[in-house]
Amino acid sequence: MTVVDTIVYRPVRDELAYTFGGRMPVAHLRSGDVLEVFTEDCFGGRVRGPADLPSQVCQMPYLNPVSGPFFVEDAEPGDTLAVHIMSIIPAREWGVSSTFPHFGALTSTSHTATLQPPLEERVWVYGIDRDAGTVRFQATETDHNVDLPLEPMIGTIGVAPGGFETRATIVPDTHGGNLDTPLVRAGTTVYLGVNVHGAMLALGDGHARQGEGEACGVGVEIATVTTLAVEVVRKTPTVWPRLETDTGIASVGCARPLEDAYRIAHTDLVGWVADLTGMDTLDAYQLISQAGRAPIGNVCDPNYTVLATVDTALLPGGCAAYGGVHARLRRAAEPR
Amino acid sequence: MTVVDTIVYRPVRDELAYTFGGRMPVAHLRSGDVLEVFTEDCFGGRVRGPADLPSQVCQMPYLNPVSGPFFVEDAEPGDTLAVHIMSIIPAREWGVSSTFPHFGALTSTSHTATLQPPLEERVWVYGIDRDAGTVRFQATETDHNVDLPLEPMIGTIGVAPGGFETRATIVPDTHGGNLDTPLVRAGTTVYLGVNVHGAMLALGDGHARQGEGEACGVGVEIATVTTLAVEVVRKTPTVWPRLETDTGIASVGCARPLEDAYRIAHTDLVGWVADLTGMDTLDAYQLISQAGRAPIGNVCDPNYTVLATVDTALLPGGCAAYGGVHARLRRAAEPR
Amino acid sequence: MTVVDTIVYRPVRDELAYTFGGRMPVAHLRSGDVLEVFTEDCFGGRVRGPADLPSQVCQMPYLNPVSGPFFVEDAEPGDTLAVHIMSIIPAREWGVSSTFPHFGALTSTSHTATLQPPLEERVWVYGIDRDAGTVRFQATETDHNVDLPLEPMIGTIGVAPGGFETRATIVPDTHGGNLDTPLVRAGTTVYLGVNVHGAMLALGDGHARQGEGEACGVGVEIATVTTLAVEVVRKTPTVWPRLETDTGIASVGCARPLEDAYRIAHTDLVGWVADLTGMDTLDAYQLISQAGRAPIGNVCDPNYTVLATVDTALLPGGCAAYGGVHARLRRAAEPR
Amino acid sequence: MTVVDTIVYRPVRDELAYTFGGRMPVAHLRSGDVLEVFTEDCFGGRVRGPADLPSQVCQMPYLNPVSGPFFVEDAEPGDTLAVHIMSIIPAREWGVSSTFPHFGALTSTSHTATLQPPLEERVWVYGIDRDAGTVRFQATETDHNVDLPLEPMIGTIGVAPGGFETRATIVPDTHGGNLDTPLVRAGTTVYLGVNVHGAMLALGDGHARQGEGEACGVGVEIATVTTLAVEVVRKTPTVWPRLETDTGIASVGCARPLEDAYRIAHTDLVGWVADLTGMDTLDAYQLISQAGRAPIGNVCDPNYTVLATVDTALLPGGCAAYGGVHARLRRAAEPR
Repeated sequence: MTVVDTIVYRPVRDELAYTFGGRMPVAHLRSGDVLEVFTEDCFGGRVRGPADLPSQVCQMPYLNPVSGPFFVEDAEPGDTLAVHIMSIIPAREWGVSSTFPHFGALTSTSHTATLQPPLEERVWVYGIDRDAGTVRFQATETDHNVDLPLEPMIGTIGVAPGGFETRATIVPDTHGGNLDTPLVRAGTTVYLGVNVHGAMLALGDGHARQGEGEACGVGVEIATVTTLAVEVVRKTPTVWPRLETDTGIASVGCARPLEDAYRIAHTDLVGWVADLTGMDTLDAYQLISQAGRAPIGNVCDPNYTVLATVDTALLPGGCAAYGGVHARLRRAAEPR
Repeated sequence: MTVVDTIVYRPVRDELAYTFGGRMPVAHLRSGDVLEVFTEDCFGGRVRGPADLPSQVCQMPYLNPVSGPFFVEDAEPGDTLAVHIMSIIPAREWGVSSTFPHFGALTSTSHTATLQPPLEERVWVYGIDRDAGTVRFQATETDHNVDLPLEPMIGTIGVAPGGFETRATIVPDTHGGNLDTPLVRAGTTVYLGVNVHGAMLALGDGHARQGEGEACGVGVEIATVTTLAVEVVRKTPTVWPRLETDTGIASVGCARPLEDAYRIAHTDLVGWVADLTGMDTLDAYQLISQAGRAPIGNVCDPNYTVLATVDTALLPGGCAAYGGVHARLRRAAEPR
Repeated sequence: MTVVDTIVYRPVRDELAYTFGGRMPVAHLRSGDVLEVFTEDCFGGRVRGPADLPSQVCQMPYLNPVSGPFFVEDAEPGDTLAVHIMSIIPAREWGVSSTFPHFGALTSTSHTATLQPPLEERVWVYGIDRDAGTVRFQATETDHNVDLPLEPMIGTIGVAPGGFETRATIVPDTHGGNLDTPLVRAGTTVYLGVNVHGAMLALGDGHARQGEGEACGVGVEIATVTTLAVEVVRKTPTVWPRLETDTGIASVGCARPLEDAYRIAHTDLVGWVADLTGMDTLDAYQLISQAGRAPIGNVCDPNYTVLATVDTALLPGGCAAYGGVHARLRRAAEPR
Repeated sequence: MTVVDTIVYRPVRDELAYTFGGRMPVAHLRSGDVLEVFTEDCFGGRVRGPADLPSQVCQMPYLNPVSGPFFVEDAEPGDTLAVHIMSIIPAREWGVSSTFPHFGALTSTSHTATLQPPLEERVWVYGIDRDAGTVRFQATETDHNVDLPLEPMIGTIGVAPGGFETRATIVPDTHGGNLDTPLVRAGTTVYLGVNVHGAMLALGDGHARQGEGEACGVGVEIATVTTLAVEVVRKTPTVWPRLETDTGIASVGCARPLEDAYRIAHTDLVGWVADLTGMDTLDAYQLISQAGRAPIGNVCDPNYTVLATVDTALLPGGCAAYGGVHARLRRAAEPR
């Protein structure tokens, strides 16, 4: 029987971090440890009703806080940090979403700059029913409402970047960060290349759910209690974030324009599949071309996110990525 | 009981079309008619084995042939043509895919032009087992093989463009064309805005299946016998192609860069949902932001394709798009 | 002494063309002929004052008319048509510009689609002083005005596309079309690859001047009398439009996103310079990287335009592109 | 007479910086001070001949070093730092350029990822003749050579970013950084928004010259002795970098895709011109659309750079940007 330490961490407001890198660790983890961590929502909990317009109650750059960073012992540059998400529990009975001036996919923005005024800023409050497994959408101008499936996910998870960089938590890139993909959910293992001594893991920005692309720029934002297990895969570099579930593997690309995110993710997945199966690169390219899926994460953040994913059942000869760490952490995560 | 005419059309080689627009009709259809049409594969059936390199056995612009165009009576500019796909049957026991010089998502191309030589041109032949419902991938350099689900789709379907234009069949745009989305499959209704008297419907480019984005630029290409029913929705314009299934609706955006395809599709879907439900535009934007999905069609054609789609069960108050034509054609399509 | 025929053509309204391809020729030209042609402005002359809002007085697709097409004898697919611009004379004493709903670089558009309403539609009328060589900008909301240099150019020039396509005149692509670059001015030779028997040259969309990128989507639009000389360069294909002046050569790329237009133009220019000088491709790449310029044509049309250009004085060994046809036509164009 | 302090700074190798932000200052400046600073080339001086392949002699992330940062007294967030470039003197008699694996505009890259192998890595050495004002290009595979004008510029200049970020010097963004535009030359004033106490100015990456877009990813790289004067413009924010010369003003946009860089720069310039002249925004948009130029900086760095620029002579009523600081620093920079 493995003895597993469980570290519990709940940040006070001043401990919240707004960057990956450039911060001192809030706690230390070892391979095999389980971490139970409270994460605030992307507004720092300040948006609680229709009158709390984000651009008024929040102050730049104090958006999208993460909890951490956590120093992972024995994690060194050139290693990979495997983070298995065991559970994501909404911490409150509500979530919020909003439009935000010149932010989102269906508006001009600071970068897709135009001379048009912004869309109206508006807040939506969702009721969360954990027992029913639903989040309730309520229209603001009419009586329309509908229950959507509760599918909790972590929007932002990453490690300190390399090259002495410090990046705002709003940014997704090679170090992870604001990936905003629904696939970072309970049961998924996230692989992140380690860039600095101790990796410096941090996470936050839970969503009760989000659509593909996060069109309005904001999911159903929630605070969470998230439980995860970590393991260092030694001397195994990872360039772009990767994910593994019980049924599939995925590479994550973060870039603009969106096709570059697609290219990154698929080039990475083709190489990964060639490595795992022993197939020639062009054969792997062909197989992914017919069997792969390409879910869009976000089309609103400083880099857009696209995943390249394939069911492992469609890979000849099966798959034991990163020495089988996903299966190992998955088992460890089961109730004993 | 409705009397339905079934038109059967099998083009001889010289009848194949390589454009939307600029062609005389091969047959006439009326609203309610059923059409059973043979479609050639994208290579005109010329690629049958590893030695048949497409760049050698095919000649530009004789690629991606379609069957048609079909003149639809009473279809006028400002109307919408509803095309319900009843079945897509692979016409042969094999399909083919390939790389093609400077074409595809993971290579430089004629437009993402670089000084690098092209990837190796190579052909893959897939065995199709209609009874088992599988297509068999066989690696070329190793013994790896795997069965993938047979999921027949039509890659190219459209009408004559407006503005006196004639477009190559390789192009997806407002008139439809080379959409390359797996959602154009049996059970789906395709809505196309009519630009010219008679609409001039044509289709081809069947795939036994394809991955999202069609990364290598080529699906598992097949000839098909496709059966469909048409109906003209009068005085109802459609700007971008739309799709409806028993469970969802989708808007199709075709553009480069890929985020513009996303923007087009989502802006269209938000407006469509607002129209169908009576919700305010920003409320529809919010709902799609949390409930929508954004499957990528192709990232290789002259325009890329992204869909914006939502389950109709997640729309408050239900949905009867285009006067319920999908349900009507669906019923008519059932065996009597 | 060369005997040169001068063909004079002034279309009546019904003769104006709105596509490249799909039209019967209005006249025939032979190599060496000089053509004097009247071209209407992009609004068909319908916008003459502040009250003539383009979206009201013009009707789609009757925008951006061209004069032609002209059948060029002996021009066959695989040849290049050299068109030397001898002079561009504004045909009226005024030009107009405007904003246009959801068109232009600093607004969301039909393709960069957002939920925002369009910018205000407004018309600017410019006075043209041919003697002074100026166009006068007059602000609409204040008394500000300023004289800008008169620099007449042809926005749209091209031949029939290949692949049986017919393209709207608003589109720039391999066949030329709506390039919208100030370099198409008197003294420049335009090289266009011939796609169909007779080439089918057409031109229009004169500008008294325009900024780089044509930010608002509309130059200072004018009718012109344009004089040009043509010559067929036999058995010499041209893929993308090219330009030559007395001091430089340029390749034109048309694509979205804008970096693809840059890549196309520069890949073409690098190959052209390698051919002209006998240098290795990477040496030509290096030289263009340090000596090249990349003026932006348009950032508003269906494809954006970027040029790659280099002064021929910076090319080792000089330059006699297309067998010296530019110098030959230049001399022929001089007053005798 | 103004008393001006001249600070001279020559970094030793260990003092070179590879980020903006995250560093302690190397010296303090006050408004009006003149700084004479030695800057290393982008390779840290390690590439001196054909055998010195950058990927072998340089080590990531130790590329593109800058000298600094310099703490500017009284510079606070919300202010603008004006940096007037007085002179840029090449520090050696040679410069170098190269291709670099999967970096540059005419190759697939880490982000425009493809399965193709990289272009050959190769080094070009240029002779610099300061008296003649030339840099000599020498082909590597043939005897071709040509003298190009010596036009020294600073590729990388910036301040510490906001939001607690630290960015690699290879990145251009709102804080400046690797703008790679030839307009940062002697006689130009650079305006940078101050994000942190003391601004933390740094610069490096001199080029003897570069083409527009820096196609191969590398200019004619040189070490320099650069002399500049600084002044803090109080309580005047600047969002994106701006430039001023004796004849024009320019806004700099940094983004991908390239059209977003164009949109940023032009939206900023339109607003700036409206502010300076008192014209309505749409009038300024119209004027820039006809009178503006849009030189491309780089199409190879993590963000691409486009400038929007206009001659001040074409602005009604003249222009005294930032309280006339350019003219003031220009005069101060003249030999006394």
